Amino acid sequence: MRMLDSSKQQRYAFTAMDNMSTQGKTQEDEITPETIQNWLIAHLAESLGVDRTHIDSTQPFSEYGLDSLAALGLVGDLEAWLGLRLEETMVWDYPTIETLSQYIASRMVMEPSAHQCISDEVPPEHYRFELFPEYRMLRQRMEEVEQHGVDNPYFRVHEGVSSDTTLSKGQRLINYSSYNYLGLSGHPRVSQAAQAAIDWYGTSVSASRISSGETPLHRELEKAVAALVGTENALVYVGGHATNINAIGHLLRPKDLIVYDAFIHNSVLQGSKMSGASHIPFPHNDWQALDSILSNIRHQYQRVLVVLEGIYSADGDIPELPRFIEVKQRHKALLMIDEAHSIGVLGQNGRGIGEHFGIETTQVDLWMGTLSKALASCGGYIAGSHALIEYLKYTDPGFVFSVGITPANAAAALAAIQCLRAEPERVTRLQARANLFAQLAREAHLNTPASKNSPVIPVFVGGSRDAMYLAQVFFQEGISVQPMVYPSVPNATARLRFFISCTHTEEQIMYTMNVLIKELTKLRG
Amino acid sequence: MRMLDSSKQQRYAFTAMDNMSTQGKTQEDEITPETIQNWLIAHLAESLGVDRTHIDSTQPFSEYGLDSLAALGLVGDLEAWLGLRLEETMVWDYPTIETLSQYIASRMVMEPSAHQCISDEVPPEHYRFELFPEYRMLRQRMEEVEQHGVDNPYFRVHEGVSSDTTLSKGQRLINYSSYNYLGLSGHPRVSQAAQAAIDWYGTSVSASRISSGETPLHRELEKAVAALVGTENALVYVGGHATNINAIGHLLRPKDLIVYDAFIHNSVLQGSKMSGASHIPFPHNDWQALDSILSNIRHQYQRVLVVLEGIYSADGDIPELPRFIEVKQRHKALLMIDEAHSIGVLGQNGRGIGEHFGIETTQVDLWMGTLSKALASCGGYIAGSHALIEYLKYTDPGFVFSVGITPANAAAALAAIQCLRAEPERVTRLQARANLFAQLAREAHLNTPASKNSPVIPVFVGGSRDAMYLAQVFFQEGISVQPMVYPSVPNATARLRFFISCTHTEEQIMYTMNVLIKELTKLRG
Repeated sequence: MRMLDSSKQQRYAFTAMDNMSTQGKTQEDEITPETIQNWLIAHLAESLGVDRTHIDSTQPFSEYGLDSLAALGLVGDLEAWLGLRLEETMVWDYPTIETLSQYIASRMVMEPSAHQCISDEVPPEHYRFELFPEYRMLRQRMEEVEQHGVDNPYFRVHEGVSSDTTLSKGQRLINYSSYNYLGLSGHPRVSQAAQAAIDWYGTSVSASRISSGETPLHRELEKAVAALVGTENALVYVGGHATNINAIGHLLRPKDLIVYDAFIHNSVLQGSKMSGASHIPFPHNDWQALDSILSNIRHQYQRVLVVLEGIYSADGDIPELPRFIEVKQRHKALLMIDEAHSIGVLGQNGRGIGEHFGIETTQVDLWMGTLSKALASCGGYIAGSHALIEYLKYTDPGFVFSVGITPANAAAALAAIQCLRAEPERVTRLQARANLFAQLAREAHLNTPASKNSPVIPVFVGGSRDAMYLAQVFFQEGISVQPMVYPSVPNATARLRFFISCTHTEEQIMYTMNVLIKELTKLRG
Repeated sequence: MRMLDSSKQQRYAFTAMDNMSTQGKTQEDEITPETIQNWLIAHLAESLGVDRTHIDSTQPFSEYGLDSLAALGLVGDLEAWLGLRLEETMVWDYPTIETLSQYIASRMVMEPSAHQCISDEVPPEHYRFELFPEYRMLRQRMEEVEQHGVDNPYFRVHEGVSSDTTLSKGQRLINYSSYNYLGLSGHPRVSQAAQAAIDWYGTSVSASRISSGETPLHRELEKAVAALVGTENALVYVGGHATNINAIGHLLRPKDLIVYDAFIHNSVLQGSKMSGASHIPFPHNDWQALDSILSNIRHQYQRVLVVLEGIYSADGDIPELPRFIEVKQRHKALLMIDEAHSIGVLGQNGRGIGEHFGIETTQVDLWMGTLSKALASCGGYIAGSHALIEYLKYTDPGFVFSVGITPANAAAALAAIQCLRAEPERVTRLQARANLFAQLAREAHLNTPASKNSPVIPVFVGGSRDAMYLAQVFFQEGISVQPMVYPSVPNATARLRFFISCTHTEEQIMYTMNVLIKELTKLRG
């Protein structure tokens, strides 16, 4: 893959506003597949800094190093030019200039009024939700799924605690669709702590913590998080997604750069967008690529933030943290790790990827994690130095202007950390079960990229429809597992994702593997 | 106040990136108060579309219609030009070109290395939090407060349920610092519902709702919210702040416009920033100004979103909703109301500002509210049409990639709505207590802008130091009330904010009023 020169790639995302004024489509322009194709070629050539003749309209955009954020920028620019709303995943659906041009031209014929944005009569798709093009597209996609006779796999109701088993449609299923890694949601000690907190503090703290929503539980929880991760201090937000949006959005600014793993979680992308900083991906787990990106462009920016995950939730793999630390130190960058799936999970005592690799915790600047997975609650945290935490605590609008987490949620996470510290054997068992599952899968020649000790185990099964079909069959066989399909991942790597819990028995795992092998064999029959 | 031509005002916020490349400061430039002053004059003149000679460097920026977002844009542009980090509230601290220029020049002398952003040696303030200029500034401000002998009024710990009274430092205080308007946090029925949900579902739903975090409680809650507000459907997010960031950020795009009340909550500003749409304020509560803004520029945009609050939390006043509806309909705009402080509070049955004015709920497109105030939990919602809710539910990244709210939080909010429906007299009592407080305050010639029936009652007390001093005195007199001071509000309108609960007795309110009159008289004496 050719990498775009990143400063140019970045400009891409910021030119939409200019285009509006300078390249605004006039009503006289006639839009044809050819004019769109020419526009795309010119646009891409400019971004790459190459002559237009070097752009091949039948080559996939990915060949030109177009990642998801740059694709968003492209879509934004197209929208600005055409006065037409376009779906964000369009570049994945129509991956070449040729196919994309034809698609857009057909859209413009279908919705002739949509691109007449500058007219006295405001078209109803600009003020009626049911006519929003993106909503109509969603409906169309949902109807297609229904036509293929596949049940809607989303928002399936779970009627009890989601642990090694779950109750759905009155049926008890072996459960691989929950992040309850340590089985602590539903654990009596955790439940009792949350219930006692409700007795004492009520069900809400009824204000932002900075004004009057602070209870002793909040500080106890933050101290416990800091002690678990091994940092000076920590700060808890109401949600993990909100933590990334707000902390990244607040600490980085337009003269800064964010470089993130290509498989990073959506919340980091949203935080990057919020910050106004330049942001580019590096190829998944490739610390050498990160090194060369920073060698080329570090000097153009003030702060530079590198963002990794402890365990990547799509592939279940673990980055080589010591390598990344060496790179970030050499380039004087800040390093942030999203431990949503690794806190409570990796390392001998569940202290996360830092313990897993035996590194000094001060070598990472922002330890981020969630309370909703191993820690049996809902929320997110940033753990780090006193200065970092004090700054966020007094100034991050997403913290200062938000209510504090509820007494029940604070108490649950606190009790979960206490359970984890008291019973590290939960972590040992979790890793053993995960390794058993992965080993059996490999013995059966299934295709899984998961790392050792990672409880996130994807199994590639063919295309999206196969994945959705298999999830339905598994349900009938008494197993709950979620498909991960296009557009979350490319169609070719559609998968079933098995999330292991320490509460799973070896028998449950062996039964599951048998079903998996049987059904995959049938499917490929 | 002169209004900026809004398209120009808006451009202001988007030019920072251009300036970086075209106006980048070279190391040869010498920066003096004069060069900064000239830059500011040129910048403001360009934004206003007037000749430089029309700019008076001793006039406050507010005279030129510079609102908080435009000020942010100015700060960003200055940062880009100077390669210096500047605090966002700077324009309030140094409100004229003259004073601001002098301040910045002194900063540059203090931090000579901070503006050498493009050099081979990365200065430590770009990668060490404790040296970040904004952190050093926070520390400096906190030390100043300490030197004035005022206790840090922030993060004061509350040791029990926060209702008509609260426990702090072991002392039982009459409490005006909580949004527990209906006394439902701490209500036995609400607590029991949350505790029963923990028994049944555990303390976490351990996944995003779209994958496997959906419980029957979530849908019950959303149906109850929709029924309370009077809409077809509703969607619940983990936090109120996160709801605004994500819903606004997802529904609006660069060709759209957001016009919000000048006193709007931070979360709406953050959502506007996230969306990439153009965004401008209209003067507080001024539907005529909104009308003229839309008359001038509606045609330049696709979607237009107008955002109001049901009760503004700084002033406690209520907008004339029917007037705004008439304006939004005429201009074919979408209307969003943030009911954080009005749901459960306004209207005969606490159904919010819609009931207060007796309007059709379909006349508002997005009814937003929080679960953390009258509804005794933590979370936020959007209520509206089926199409709107279905679209957000399947596509808003801040919902789709976030865990579902916890069983305890869902059950608490659901039970709170049930209590509200069963006991509308709570609302009657709340409004009566609020009106008593406001009436006594007016009889004593205190300065309060609160509306009738609003439980948010600010009392202007002079400057920020007076407000902080009074809050401390009140604490000693057995009353908990929070000061609202600069930079949250201009120094001249620093205030004590009294949040009334239906659990307050008339005696508590009369005692409080006596203390207030006594202490204000002393202070002015």
